[in-house]
Amino acid sequence: MVVQSVSELPLAKDFSSFISVEASARKKSPLKSLLVFMKGNMISLGGGLPHPSTFPFTELSSVVKSAPAGTTALKDTKKENIETVSVPLDPTDGKVESLAASLQYGGGLGMPSLRNFCKTHIESMHKPQYQDWEVIMTCGNTDSFTKALALLLNRGDYILIEKWAYPTAMETIEPLGITAVPIPVDGEGICPKALRQTLDNWGSEPHQTPENKPRVAYLVPTGQNPTGATMGLQRRRDIMAIAQQHNLIIIEDDPYYYLQFSIDDGWMPSLLSLDTDGRVIRLDSFSKTLAPGCRVGYATMNKQFREYFQFHTEVTVQQPSGFSQAVLAEMLVGHWGQEGYTRYLTERVRIEYLNRSKFLQSCLRKYVNSELISFVEPSAGMFIWLKVHVEKHPRHGQVTDSALMLELFNACIAEDVLLTPGWQFSTKPKPQNADLSKVQEFWFDDEATFLRATFAYADFPQMEKAAQSLGVAVTKAFAA
Amino acid sequence: MVVQSVSELPLAKDFSSFISVEASARKKSPLKSLLVFMKGNMISLGGGLPHPSTFPFTELSSVVKSAPAGTTALKDTKKENIETVSVPLDPTDGKVESLAASLQYGGGLGMPSLRNFCKTHIESMHKPQYQDWEVIMTCGNTDSFTKALALLLNRGDYILIEKWAYPTAMETIEPLGITAVPIPVDGEGICPKALRQTLDNWGSEPHQTPENKPRVAYLVPTGQNPTGATMGLQRRRDIMAIAQQHNLIIIEDDPYYYLQFSIDDGWMPSLLSLDTDGRVIRLDSFSKTLAPGCRVGYATMNKQFREYFQFHTEVTVQQPSGFSQAVLAEMLVGHWGQEGYTRYLTERVRIEYLNRSKFLQSCLRKYVNSELISFVEPSAGMFIWLKVHVEKHPRHGQVTDSALMLELFNACIAEDVLLTPGWQFSTKPKPQNADLSKVQEFWFDDEATFLRATFAYADFPQMEKAAQSLGVAVTKAFAA
Repeated sequence: MVVQSVSELPLAKDFSSFISVEASARKKSPLKSLLVFMKGNMISLGGGLPHPSTFPFTELSSVVKSAPAGTTALKDTKKENIETVSVPLDPTDGKVESLAASLQYGGGLGMPSLRNFCKTHIESMHKPQYQDWEVIMTCGNTDSFTKALALLLNRGDYILIEKWAYPTAMETIEPLGITAVPIPVDGEGICPKALRQTLDNWGSEPHQTPENKPRVAYLVPTGQNPTGATMGLQRRRDIMAIAQQHNLIIIEDDPYYYLQFSIDDGWMPSLLSLDTDGRVIRLDSFSKTLAPGCRVGYATMNKQFREYFQFHTEVTVQQPSGFSQAVLAEMLVGHWGQEGYTRYLTERVRIEYLNRSKFLQSCLRKYVNSELISFVEPSAGMFIWLKVHVEKHPRHGQVTDSALMLELFNACIAEDVLLTPGWQFSTKPKPQNADLSKVQEFWFDDEATFLRATFAYADFPQMEKAAQSLGVAVTKAFAA
Repeated sequence: MVVQSVSELPLAKDFSSFISVEASARKKSPLKSLLVFMKGNMISLGGGLPHPSTFPFTELSSVVKSAPAGTTALKDTKKENIETVSVPLDPTDGKVESLAASLQYGGGLGMPSLRNFCKTHIESMHKPQYQDWEVIMTCGNTDSFTKALALLLNRGDYILIEKWAYPTAMETIEPLGITAVPIPVDGEGICPKALRQTLDNWGSEPHQTPENKPRVAYLVPTGQNPTGATMGLQRRRDIMAIAQQHNLIIIEDDPYYYLQFSIDDGWMPSLLSLDTDGRVIRLDSFSKTLAPGCRVGYATMNKQFREYFQFHTEVTVQQPSGFSQAVLAEMLVGHWGQEGYTRYLTERVRIEYLNRSKFLQSCLRKYVNSELISFVEPSAGMFIWLKVHVEKHPRHGQVTDSALMLELFNACIAEDVLLTPGWQFSTKPKPQNADLSKVQEFWFDDEATFLRATFAYADFPQMEKAAQSLGVAVTKAFAA
């Protein structure tokens, strides 16, 4: 591969026609225009910043694990080293913002040191193939997804989505008056052929018009929730080719990217890294790698999109918490560095989930009849998508597949193992006025013959016991 | 006043017809329905929580100022005492959540200990006059305001607003396709007579129909930004009477509530405290009292509204930062307590701004010709709204008032003092395609004969110098 200098890369294409009605109406705040005067002897009575003397916080620190093969002198491989991360008090010291700056109002882009760290990380991990990409800090990927939708879609629009999606995605899309267009998936995620067919044939149904042809696809390419599917490189290339051909914007929601179990051939290229047009909005999160409580993530997109995204951020959350950003900045920039962070992801986070995945899979193989329940081995993420072979059930055809799945779910509960019902990930519209809380009486969508299992949280003896119980529950449910 | 027990208070009225199309489509996440099974010997492979062993943070602490008349043994009145606030490591200890809980995913309501603290604070400060009010944590009042709008208003709707409003309010409202209906204000804020007239006469203009009659008013009742106006008690009662008569929901955005300069007769009752129907959504923020970088606030509203507000929170920010909430919870619940917090607000924050307000006012009186620039003495907040008497200008009538204001603004810049142009707070639609960043060439709205000054941030010598410079600039501008 020939390494190109940034200046040789193309600029992003013009996607201004993709901006929603709402986003088009967003403008730079006039208050910002006053900043140009703040030089020389100018005294400002203009801004509205609270006085720092009223802030009670005078120091902020966290004890954190050292990055593996660490930044400290100790090299005890058996136990994890720790170090104290203190947000600097002196604004002129160090490479990260002072506590006073972290506690004050800031711009909508997020704290510069942390944002630059994330930008450098994106540069080295994903090597975007166009010049004018930018990074903005967010309150995590749910916040980012909402803002990406607001940026691109109007009420009445359609969005392409994997046939099985995590519930929050649908709960975000539907109230905005956006309709999900589910695309079939296989063990490698969204199927290019089906995606192409949907787009080629758009117009064949009465509600489909040239005007409402989908312009946006929402994809979770790595360790997808719930299917656990990871798109292979060719699959990614195929999807990007379709995106170019049909001029789609791709929202690449990739919180599980660093939970790739095999990186012998390197990390799987992201969709961002295959994008030469600036049509991918990539969403990264610290929730699955450092802690969900940070409520910090970041989004990478072309400069034009970033601007509207920033305006939206400024009038909603303004920016992520200064406490979170300050601790993250000091840990990442001041202590771990880029290499330490990558080592932490690779050697701690990734390995933890790899071991957990392997263990739950071995338990499932040991205790659960694979004729009745099968799964595609996940190569990333937190989930195993259990396919229930209802066609093997003695009463198959006499009652609905939904009824059989509900029986199995209740058999699991009776055996003290809880799995997430497959219908909760259905992208079909749910029945009106259905009481979704009555999960022991409710199963809609006959195609949802799945249960989602996670290996992320339970301890190993619990996972073994759960697999055993599932084995018993399946045997009992299929015996009746 | 007869103290009523909570059970004697009425329930909130039914405001279900106020819920927007978007909010009506929000539902409880089906994932939540699985929590009921988590008892006895149940093992869950259902949830999607990351494993805490992957979180690098092992301790979190902040050194904070002690609450006045303090909680520590030291009682040195000259210097502020400090104490160390450590987020507890042990989940079974103390009254606040452990670090592990703070770092994990949580519910959309916010951390229970902090939310309960805020609820108790609301109870004691505002004594809501109906039973079923609730509190939800937010990422600050901009986040709350966005969610309140999404809860109540559809594209095409109208909202009542003070004639002069801070720019973010308009920047939030307009892109949502909501039209602001500005109501005249005086030194006590929004004018009841004008508000009543607008509502009584709705329908007299072509675009006004019974269907689009405003159902929501957005008000900043205390130390309003930019006017500095604080509604007196009778004014508040009048507004609430109109709200009842015309069945309005009031969004009470009250970040400056604790910056009341005279509390000899007690704190001014909030609109929430006068609301017997559950028609006030009250927005509180820690940004002006503890630090904007917290990005934490809370909203108080009737139970039905809270539910939809929570669903929206869960699919966007999920909840405020765990770092922020944990430090706040430990400081407020574990150290300061309700009384300490109120003392901090009363004796530290309020007094700081009171002193600053007095000082800037004295400087303005000393250096600025009060025939040319006058102001209503603010009784709360951070701002002084300077009325420029353009009618006294020698060229008044020969050029527009906007042109005269622009000259004055430029004269101020030439004298090295920056004030915020009054037009930036105009609630009139701004000219299409205007370049709002060219503040030295742009002034729209001939009624915006104001400059906003803040006493919140500059130090005292700077404030004096700024007032002097303003005096010179005004004299020069009015001489020409």
